[in-house]
Amino acid sequence: MNFSLTQIPERTQKPRNAGITMVMDKGLSIREAENTAETGAEYIDIIKLGFGTSMVTPRLKDKISVYRNAGIPVYLGGTLFEAFYVRNMLDAYQSLLDDLGLRHLEISDGSIDIPSDEKCELIRRFAKNYKVLSEVGSKDTEKIIPPYKWIEMMNAEIEAGSWKVIAEARESGTVGIFRGSGEVRSGLVEEILTKISQEDIIWEAPKKAQQVWFIKLYGCNVSLGNIAPNEILALEALRIGLRGDSFTFFLDGEHPKPGRKPGDLRI
Amino acid sequence: MNFSLTQIPERTQKPRNAGITMVMDKGLSIREAENTAETGAEYIDIIKLGFGTSMVTPRLKDKISVYRNAGIPVYLGGTLFEAFYVRNMLDAYQSLLDDLGLRHLEISDGSIDIPSDEKCELIRRFAKNYKVLSEVGSKDTEKIIPPYKWIEMMNAEIEAGSWKVIAEARESGTVGIFRGSGEVRSGLVEEILTKISQEDIIWEAPKKAQQVWFIKLYGCNVSLGNIAPNEILALEALRIGLRGDSFTFFLDGEHPKPGRKPGDLRI
Amino acid sequence: MNFSLTQIPERTQKPRNAGITMVMDKGLSIREAENTAETGAEYIDIIKLGFGTSMVTPRLKDKISVYRNAGIPVYLGGTLFEAFYVRNMLDAYQSLLDDLGLRHLEISDGSIDIPSDEKCELIRRFAKNYKVLSEVGSKDTEKIIPPYKWIEMMNAEIEAGSWKVIAEARESGTVGIFRGSGEVRSGLVEEILTKISQEDIIWEAPKKAQQVWFIKLYGCNVSLGNIAPNEILALEALRIGLRGDSFTFFLDGEHPKPGRKPGDLRI
Repeated sequence: MNFSLTQIPERTQKPRNAGITMVMDKGLSIREAENTAETGAEYIDIIKLGFGTSMVTPRLKDKISVYRNAGIPVYLGGTLFEAFYVRNMLDAYQSLLDDLGLRHLEISDGSIDIPSDEKCELIRRFAKNYKVLSEVGSKDTEKIIPPYKWIEMMNAEIEAGSWKVIAEARESGTVGIFRGSGEVRSGLVEEILTKISQEDIIWEAPKKAQQVWFIKLYGCNVSLGNIAPNEILALEALRIGLRGDSFTFFLDGEHPKPGRKPGDLRI
Repeated sequence: MNFSLTQIPERTQKPRNAGITMVMDKGLSIREAENTAETGAEYIDIIKLGFGTSMVTPRLKDKISVYRNAGIPVYLGGTLFEAFYVRNMLDAYQSLLDDLGLRHLEISDGSIDIPSDEKCELIRRFAKNYKVLSEVGSKDTEKIIPPYKWIEMMNAEIEAGSWKVIAEARESGTVGIFRGSGEVRSGLVEEILTKISQEDIIWEAPKKAQQVWFIKLYGCNVSLGNIAPNEILALEALRIGLRGDSFTFFLDGEHPKPGRKPGDLRI
Repeated sequence: MNFSLTQIPERTQKPRNAGITMVMDKGLSIREAENTAETGAEYIDIIKLGFGTSMVTPRLKDKISVYRNAGIPVYLGGTLFEAFYVRNMLDAYQSLLDDLGLRHLEISDGSIDIPSDEKCELIRRFAKNYKVLSEVGSKDTEKIIPPYKWIEMMNAEIEAGSWKVIAEARESGTVGIFRGSGEVRSGLVEEILTKISQEDIIWEAPKKAQQVWFIKLYGCNVSLGNIAPNEILALEALRIGLRGDSFTFFLDGEHPKPGRKPGDLRI
């Protein structure tokens, strides 16, 4: 922090288990990756090379090194995992991870259906040697999964060895835990949290209004994903109440009276 | 200018009193700040480090130096001012400005209510040692301020010593002088300009359609704010009639006849 | 490609006649242009300096050199051509092209009306010494051109010597071949393609949903334009079926069954 202010909520520090910021790199150049690493070294907990961009990225290993040297682990988008899975090429996928020196992977079924038992079996297999982020939720806007099913799947995947479960929203923030308009399915999120621990979930929340909703309800140390590289400091300011949208969330409201009501929940 | 064209409106030159472009940096890295300074040295009149991002920006002083060395003054977002104000820490805020070597500050009440008298008192206090940009308008979409009140506040703040008054719109361009849809409250703007000089106002106008509206009605040398760093040259081209949206604004319409009607007002 | 996968459609290689990616630079700095060139050397076929930004770009010649050295030809936005045309300064325009060492130009009438005969005459004139990209379609949302007229114009312009015709959509993707909502005028596109060869057309398609539509129907080697510099690798992944939206387009659907139907057309 560059200066002191009272009534600033305390952020967790790296390596974080809660309050994670997961960033999506969908095609940065080496120098742009360096920019992101410089700005975000303290704030980014993990970076995803979005969907299958890693296949067409020039100097891929150099980019991974840039992030690794800044203390930011890298993983490949779940869509790439699914592309290898659907082609019956998971051994090749594992070799690729090792060749790239990656220690994390995403296991998802956003574009295809993998039976729950098989998905958990895959999580068990990879969890022996990697940190697994498993994603729940479809990329298909038409496919509405009822809350009890979200809970069942998340529970089973955590039990199978997932380090974190990711709640799907896409880069657009318009599927999974969000409506097509981007609005949060708040009943769904609340019901999930009656059964699953907040610390086990990363919520994909690419839009500011979505981030505000999560921070207001669950405090500054909620784990958020699919953050754009140029939004890292903006999100960090939002988390600690230094953006208009979250200005009153962490104030005690004593003096002077702010114009808005503080959020109901503090961290 | 890299080449000559007739019928190009004359832009003011730095240091500008009218035709100001105020840019919002909400988390650029040092190298991105250098990119912005290189592209925008001639065109950017002042840069705002958006809301409270300056608290969490790595190498903050280096970034400020990059802009200063390019002849671009820096100020901190009004939300940060409000965060110090609401915590009764304005002396610490002033020390911060001095420590960072800043000569400009924003005094706003977008997230809180400051009684008009007190706000003007603050403007008077800081105007002794700094150039004050004071912002009028709430960040709250629900809070509709009637035109006479905008005029009253702007007048009082200019009289108290504000260098410029900023008409609030946020980064999103959906509050204050704009409707939730981003459309200009044109009646409000027109009424304000019956009483306040165009040169005293910076209009926050982050969206292209908003910039077009102001340039069409008030010419290329209208002062616009909350411009994104990657829109600087695009705005400059728009200002001088070299984008589709403003193509006919400055043509005399003699030969050959363009397909659209020129704007009603020229600079 | 950084690794192998089966069932990946074969992309054309540079210099491409089909499967072109045309990128719009609307104000990058030199270093950002270098970033774009590094990432996109294999994927970008041509770069447009959007509308009239080239007039106000610092170190314009250096920027053009960056792209040229990466094997990416540059041309100036059609709006700039129209600005010279409407001022009766086309000789100066030609001198400008030569001074900048450009070998491509765009001839358009998006902001003005040029009678079809005259436009073709201009194409014939410039095609002697340059590669001409001529654009069809108005930037005016109100101006609906019927399909037969699109076909007539495209045919005439190709005959006059255009290297490619560009189907207008603007940076926003909301005019010309798209509705105001950004939705594709699919009947229009299909009718055009009954008479004009796919290889002769670059479709401006700045939005992902638009790119998906073209790739789904016409395969990975459809020519797309007005791509943002930070979307180059994302588009390339989309083209080869490695993004959720195009995941099933190129799968044979044998094993295991994907959850979605493949696109109707393959390359």
